[in-house]
Amino acid sequence: MADGTAAPAMRWWGWGDPAHARVLPAHALGYLSERLGALGPARPPVALAHVRLEPSRLSASMRGRLADIVGERHVRSDHGERVAHAAGRGYVDLITLRAGEPLGAPDAVVLPRSHEQLRALLELCSQSSLALVPFGGGTSVVGGVAPLRGSHEAVLALDTRRLCEILELDREAMTVSVQGGLRAPALERHLAPHGLTLGHFPQSYEYVSLGGCAATRSAGQASTGYGTIAGMLLGLRLAAPTADIDLPPLPATAAGPGLRQLLVGSEGSLGVIEQLSLRVRAAPAERVYEGFFFREFSTGAQALRAMAQEHALPDVARLSDEQETQSSLALARSGQLKDRLGETYLALRGYRDGCLAIFGFEGSPQQVRARRRHTLELARSYDGLALGRAPGEAWRRSRFEGPYLRDELLTHGVMVETLETAAQWSRVGTLHREVGDAIEQALRACGTPGLAMCHISHVYESGASLYFTFLARRRQTDELGQWRAVKQAASGAIIAGKGTITHHHAIGRDHAPWLERELGSGGVAALRALKRELDPAGIMNPGKLLAHGSPH
Amino acid sequence: MADGTAAPAMRWWGWGDPAHARVLPAHALGYLSERLGALGPARPPVALAHVRLEPSRLSASMRGRLADIVGERHVRSDHGERVAHAAGRGYVDLITLRAGEPLGAPDAVVLPRSHEQLRALLELCSQSSLALVPFGGGTSVVGGVAPLRGSHEAVLALDTRRLCEILELDREAMTVSVQGGLRAPALERHLAPHGLTLGHFPQSYEYVSLGGCAATRSAGQASTGYGTIAGMLLGLRLAAPTADIDLPPLPATAAGPGLRQLLVGSEGSLGVIEQLSLRVRAAPAERVYEGFFFREFSTGAQALRAMAQEHALPDVARLSDEQETQSSLALARSGQLKDRLGETYLALRGYRDGCLAIFGFEGSPQQVRARRRHTLELARSYDGLALGRAPGEAWRRSRFEGPYLRDELLTHGVMVETLETAAQWSRVGTLHREVGDAIEQALRACGTPGLAMCHISHVYESGASLYFTFLARRRQTDELGQWRAVKQAASGAIIAGKGTITHHHAIGRDHAPWLERELGSGGVAALRALKRELDPAGIMNPGKLLAHGSPH
Repeated sequence: MADGTAAPAMRWWGWGDPAHARVLPAHALGYLSERLGALGPARPPVALAHVRLEPSRLSASMRGRLADIVGERHVRSDHGERVAHAAGRGYVDLITLRAGEPLGAPDAVVLPRSHEQLRALLELCSQSSLALVPFGGGTSVVGGVAPLRGSHEAVLALDTRRLCEILELDREAMTVSVQGGLRAPALERHLAPHGLTLGHFPQSYEYVSLGGCAATRSAGQASTGYGTIAGMLLGLRLAAPTADIDLPPLPATAAGPGLRQLLVGSEGSLGVIEQLSLRVRAAPAERVYEGFFFREFSTGAQALRAMAQEHALPDVARLSDEQETQSSLALARSGQLKDRLGETYLALRGYRDGCLAIFGFEGSPQQVRARRRHTLELARSYDGLALGRAPGEAWRRSRFEGPYLRDELLTHGVMVETLETAAQWSRVGTLHREVGDAIEQALRACGTPGLAMCHISHVYESGASLYFTFLARRRQTDELGQWRAVKQAASGAIIAGKGTITHHHAIGRDHAPWLERELGSGGVAALRALKRELDPAGIMNPGKLLAHGSPH
Repeated sequence: MADGTAAPAMRWWGWGDPAHARVLPAHALGYLSERLGALGPARPPVALAHVRLEPSRLSASMRGRLADIVGERHVRSDHGERVAHAAGRGYVDLITLRAGEPLGAPDAVVLPRSHEQLRALLELCSQSSLALVPFGGGTSVVGGVAPLRGSHEAVLALDTRRLCEILELDREAMTVSVQGGLRAPALERHLAPHGLTLGHFPQSYEYVSLGGCAATRSAGQASTGYGTIAGMLLGLRLAAPTADIDLPPLPATAAGPGLRQLLVGSEGSLGVIEQLSLRVRAAPAERVYEGFFFREFSTGAQALRAMAQEHALPDVARLSDEQETQSSLALARSGQLKDRLGETYLALRGYRDGCLAIFGFEGSPQQVRARRRHTLELARSYDGLALGRAPGEAWRRSRFEGPYLRDELLTHGVMVETLETAAQWSRVGTLHREVGDAIEQALRACGTPGLAMCHISHVYESGASLYFTFLARRRQTDELGQWRAVKQAASGAIIAGKGTITHHHAIGRDHAPWLERELGSGGVAALRALKRELDPAGIMNPGKLLAHGSPH
């Protein structure tokens, strides 16, 4: 990067590395047209120059005051930077960006380098009615970085990429302290030569900042083994407009209410997670990823429950439902997996409409061997059919590819969106059915019948996550209305079924209307009180988390 | 109980079951006089009738209004009830109670039976300037139930013993929902026929309420295996003066800041934990507890660290330092353990001044076998000497006896107090030394040189707890000054050494002066804002947690 920091480039109109190869195989569009109806003409993104932004509202004098704090080069309001910070990477973000009509843009982007600069920014913005949107990797899929002004004069994206130092690696305690803007891959690169890993691999891994992970209560694909960010976080510093809250790393404490966990998930609404201390682990000497087939989703879920409750979980445990299994096989880039699993073999064994599971084990060879034995015994006791390592390795190779695939589907006129929840085991079956039905019903009502599919990806003793993906034709008009209808139906079903409105995507803008239904008015009042204390001017990330109103 | 609830009786002047046998062996006093100096005459507690209380300040009309809510029988202000709710079970509580001069007493005790009664009490007390001290098992050792009025007209103990229903047992999710006043043994009795256990066994187990455990962020003796109460808690309802916060059980959620963990540790300062949902587990078919000897505390600690970081921890893992090992052997009720470990055998093998560890494994026979193998391999690799099951079983049999022993030591003129912390592994060694030195130095400065000893009882990947016990002669005058001097010295050393002011005893009154040094002014301001929102009249447990000032 020009400024010497390690943030990787991302396509302004979509996901990821501009040089990344296409991932949509030729046969996939045929399958989709067959299932969803004719998809219409391709809809590529407009050119960057054609993206329409309102003029920046930042006055020259205010710009000068910001430059006094962070330096001239680190107050940016050129077209490219404003577009790059105009949205996250959710469906609504992408369709509006691609159309050249993002729902807003920051009036400028500021990039502080130090605690002092950050504090000075917080103070200036509080005094001058400038909203601040903390922006790490910019990967939010729930509108978490939408550049909303609220009632303020202007809105700035506070890009944390220059707050990217590794502060301390404590080999004895196995902890690392970092600045919040550090990207997850940069940390892994630093840890690898020490034989260590953080083990936090959300699908957005290539871009996420660690402060952003903490702020959004992120979970990674291997969180069943390595823990979610909430479990890894031992200390942090939140820089809020009225105060710093500095909580040193501790293995445990009973010193009053759990402030650390309160600040995890604060989504930039209380302040900026400027530093955090995280637990690290020995990098695994061995990784075994393998596939299993279960006859039904419910049987596979029972197997996962048994593994959790008998403390025999793999580090990665995923179970696709029948629909997702079928679609994944149909869409897979290489025909290989499909061929190996497909048709004859599974059909003969009576698993034809079954469910694919992926189990991943990491650790020393001895650990992997001992753990695998116990886990696979349980899988077999639920009638699971071992498929060997090919499906596991195929999943591992492609595990960050979902968002690239999404871009191509959007180009080809396919609506593709995800949403997720978690619930007690006793509700998982019903919730799976009811949320899937709600999505498909809403899609039909929009005149675009589609597919809802689901997997479990995070497993706990008392319950599991459910991650839904749905596909339909993109409408030519009122695409936001199409999205909103499905989102509302699904969210209503989640809340009615006693699931959480989000297991790991956070609240942001999109889930804000349901927060009070989950936390109750008392819970929301408590959070608002905290917000008033730490951000009395209300400049921090307005319109998210504690905002009233409806999505978009 | 007369009111049909399950709370067991407790000696008014000390710990536990009035029928419990003496636990101080004859030879122990000899050992103590030798180490601490002549102990002076026995100091038994005064008679109950001689305990001096101020007259109740509750007016007849207010008493009537309380009776309108909970019923006449459940507003109590007789001498016995007021004394029973005058104090917790810390050192300061006990020496003042035994002398017949408790530091205060509630003006009445109220015992609500339902949510409606609880809400009505919260509202009446908020309007009428009556402080409320939530009182579960009354086992706080940090002044957490001290009946302080703050600036209010009167103070009531809000005894939760009638809020003791088991609301739901979800066998599939392995969770149980209970009212906060339910005692831990009552829950275990309910779970046992289902083959389940909560697995939460603090030393105070015989009396603790589950709401109290959650309010004080409790850890049990088997928390290394079963998790602390914070890890078990999946949902809760806090009844606060201005609102209920009702958070249903969820395995995980990213719906904003971690409110559940915020309310764990709220110590009655924000409201009453009226309900909670907890994870339960299969009751273990097998339990193996055994002893090990390490040559030095530091080597034993390294072994524990390796177990934690290699995920090979037992369910119970304890390591006494040299001083505690020596004193435990000297004070042991039965000479058996001492004889078996003592002198010849250990000395010959070069472990004479070593450290005793207890490892406990629980689970299915296969699980216990597999886990033990790995753990004991690690113990041996740190030069640990296996002592077999006798020391493990001896510890298990006597694990709730500490507080009974304390009462007898007090009678015999011995000051005995405990305090605890936790820190990163990289600080454990220094902290152990510095806190121990601070305690012994403070005792010498008081003219009562004593013994400070320590054990690790809770082990984490990134660090461990340190639990100190100290013994000295009780001064004849200004015993509070003697205690305060040691407490201040130890707390100062803990904070300076970057330990937490408490790993599992909570803040209460005694640690309140150090809270801001741990959380910073920003952290305390955030908690105060929350308190203002939920308890604007400041009636909830005044003088604890967020109070300014010094202990006693």
